[in-house]
Amino acid sequence: MEKLDLAELNKNRILISDVFEKNIKNVEVAGWVHNTRDLSKVKFIILRDFSGMIQVTGIKGKTPEKIFKDMEKIPRESVIYVKGKIVDSKQAPNGKEINPDELIVMNKSEELPIDIPLNIKDESTTELPKRLDWRSLSLRTRKSQIIFRVQAKIVEGMQEYLRGNGFIQVFTPCIMGVPSESGSEVFEIKYYNGKAFLRQDPQLHRQLTVLGGFEKIYDIGPVWRAEKSHTIKHLTEHRVCAVEKAFIDNEHDIMKLEEQVIISALKKVNEDCNKELEELGIKLKIPSAPFPEINFPEVYSILEKMGKKISKGEDLDAEGEKLLWEYVQKKYQGVDFYFLNKFPHKIKPFYVKGEKNSDYARSTDLYFRGMEMSSGGQREENYETLMENIKNRKLNPKSVEWFTKFFKYGAPTHGGFAIGIERITMILLGLSNVREAVLFPRDPERIVP
Amino acid sequence: MEKLDLAELNKNRILISDVFEKNIKNVEVAGWVHNTRDLSKVKFIILRDFSGMIQVTGIKGKTPEKIFKDMEKIPRESVIYVKGKIVDSKQAPNGKEINPDELIVMNKSEELPIDIPLNIKDESTTELPKRLDWRSLSLRTRKSQIIFRVQAKIVEGMQEYLRGNGFIQVFTPCIMGVPSESGSEVFEIKYYNGKAFLRQDPQLHRQLTVLGGFEKIYDIGPVWRAEKSHTIKHLTEHRVCAVEKAFIDNEHDIMKLEEQVIISALKKVNEDCNKELEELGIKLKIPSAPFPEINFPEVYSILEKMGKKISKGEDLDAEGEKLLWEYVQKKYQGVDFYFLNKFPHKIKPFYVKGEKNSDYARSTDLYFRGMEMSSGGQREENYETLMENIKNRKLNPKSVEWFTKFFKYGAPTHGGFAIGIERITMILLGLSNVREAVLFPRDPERIVP
Repeated sequence: MEKLDLAELNKNRILISDVFEKNIKNVEVAGWVHNTRDLSKVKFIILRDFSGMIQVTGIKGKTPEKIFKDMEKIPRESVIYVKGKIVDSKQAPNGKEINPDELIVMNKSEELPIDIPLNIKDESTTELPKRLDWRSLSLRTRKSQIIFRVQAKIVEGMQEYLRGNGFIQVFTPCIMGVPSESGSEVFEIKYYNGKAFLRQDPQLHRQLTVLGGFEKIYDIGPVWRAEKSHTIKHLTEHRVCAVEKAFIDNEHDIMKLEEQVIISALKKVNEDCNKELEELGIKLKIPSAPFPEINFPEVYSILEKMGKKISKGEDLDAEGEKLLWEYVQKKYQGVDFYFLNKFPHKIKPFYVKGEKNSDYARSTDLYFRGMEMSSGGQREENYETLMENIKNRKLNPKSVEWFTKFFKYGAPTHGGFAIGIERITMILLGLSNVREAVLFPRDPERIVP
Repeated sequence: MEKLDLAELNKNRILISDVFEKNIKNVEVAGWVHNTRDLSKVKFIILRDFSGMIQVTGIKGKTPEKIFKDMEKIPRESVIYVKGKIVDSKQAPNGKEINPDELIVMNKSEELPIDIPLNIKDESTTELPKRLDWRSLSLRTRKSQIIFRVQAKIVEGMQEYLRGNGFIQVFTPCIMGVPSESGSEVFEIKYYNGKAFLRQDPQLHRQLTVLGGFEKIYDIGPVWRAEKSHTIKHLTEHRVCAVEKAFIDNEHDIMKLEEQVIISALKKVNEDCNKELEELGIKLKIPSAPFPEINFPEVYSILEKMGKKISKGEDLDAEGEKLLWEYVQKKYQGVDFYFLNKFPHKIKPFYVKGEKNSDYARSTDLYFRGMEMSSGGQREENYETLMENIKNRKLNPKSVEWFTKFFKYGAPTHGGFAIGIERITMILLGLSNVREAVLFPRDPERIVP
């Protein structure tokens, strides 16, 4: 392949969307060859950049001969530069096309190893695993482009609310000297001559940051779980927007906060990705606060009435979650988000705050159309109670002393939650697999590319 | 310790800053006991929350007797709730104080294990390692509070520019199937029955995201280096704001972008942390673009004139960096930021774009007062040249095929940079150790708390 000097080809480049939005006659554009069509006397290239698509039309006898000849042999997905005149055209998509004066293949593509569908409504004929093997190619569909734009807007909407309400973005550590929860689902790192662990949740360090006097914080970053689950909703690496707040009265202060974070995220998507949602045929409903709240132990009797018996004190299983979503749909029409609250204390970690004189805890999960989206609630701030919780769970107090020791020196009441960014993207856009909401997903079998 | 029901104590709480800014007579506040003073007939508590400090004054015979008595035995750093009346007072800091009607110790502190200085100008008498062992306590100084507010504003300023200019926030993977650069400085993870690695830089996946059609992206997240360096500027875990852009002409397009990201960050800090900077005695200078640029091989002759001989084709060492900062201070008065450009190609990784017919590369480091802040430049997008680079570096093409294979299917020109968030915080605030700019720093000896 000839090595071109591409030095000056981007200087005057404009985005394809600007061709349609502004009234420009002579343009320089660059992007990927989305498709080509050869009608012998007329040749078409659909050129795509990240802002849109435009038709490049070559006409025999009118378009410079070399360009007209070149147009038939440019493979799909090659990167090209086009300089030309904008002309109105009834046949062209969006009513405008480019008649090229100059056309340079900046980077030629080989034959594609996977099927990249041309239209947003078409499914690739290539199976998901192979599409993920060739992720930089499968990302080039309009649907993928939309997914990650929407995801960025979800995060932006969350940040807007949090920053606007005095929350400070912090970065807590990913490497832990001690596994954060149970040892089995944690990834171990060779750390010089010893070992370390990847965090499963930034919660413990968020708590220690709050104890450090930062009353309102959030941390957007990765967490890891060495689960062996091979499901459409599990990843070994995912991202959370994790919030923590001091001086709360109870977990309802946290739930109110979480509602606003969710609403702000969805509003942002609705405002800034209106066109994209329309392309996917999605009509987004902005939820209104308060979200319905279903409490333990009431959950047990609701499920029992639906024919599902779970012993008191036990956790929900997948079937239970499904039935509850049915229940919510019937009872609260049109509702997508709802809280489960007051989980049994004994199935929750030692740092969760229990209700007074009760077997239940101030521990809250947020569900979005039947899928768990986040865990949260109030944390135990009293040192003596923390030590009791540890004793009741038969944990070795020494193993958590690095964390508990700080609670002897002035800990305010506090609580928080962590929203899974990929999961909310998945449910919001109705994706069939959470991997579609990750640029380069990680699961037990996949760590490349 | 008596377990209180703290349920209603936060409901009507207002921030201490609001006491001074708004005209409120009866207040409920809560926070940490910053200091106490007992003049026998008058007792003082300085109460601190994350917004400010206020004096609580108890007067014998006027303040309820139990409260007056309690005031003398509340240890520093305990968390307390105070309900009372605001009165103007010439003696009180900022002219107002609280006469308490109710005072509840929400969470009592034991005797502090480290020295937490009371005033921003005082240094702790406790050495840094021990202060980091007790991080939730050493974070409670005003200086630490300011450091992380400023850091959040640096990130916010960067995001504002990037979002405002069409860059999409993405999340690239932390877990890699193949080490991203040389094997020696990478952390290894036990990944089920095999192994994986922590990224040293999200660059390769940022490039693959650009090849996926996302032309303007940024990724804010952690990176890791298993260096054995025990210096004031090295961490094993740090955060970067990493940007990548497609369709560039050369590395100068990237440098221009980086300048704007830096300027936006510093402006944000200046606007939103004006008071905080003043407290630290810092006058922030907003740099203007373009930043000075010093190129290789000219760097060698500059250093030689200063008495430092480095062979052509070799990298800078710490002494060379120091001398260059001297040179910059003399030549460009008042300049803090400057680029070194055109590093020798052979010392750079295979994915860096070389200059045509030259031993030098489009590889750019940004320096801030003599410290390297970021690496960046243009990447090689031509498949054949990538393969030549790999051959010249005697790498096994198979080991990087997971990455290079994508360059056969339409790769635009592109480049980017990654700014170290902790380092820019450190230099901006004149901190003597980068660990002060990390909530919970990680180094070869420290992974707890």
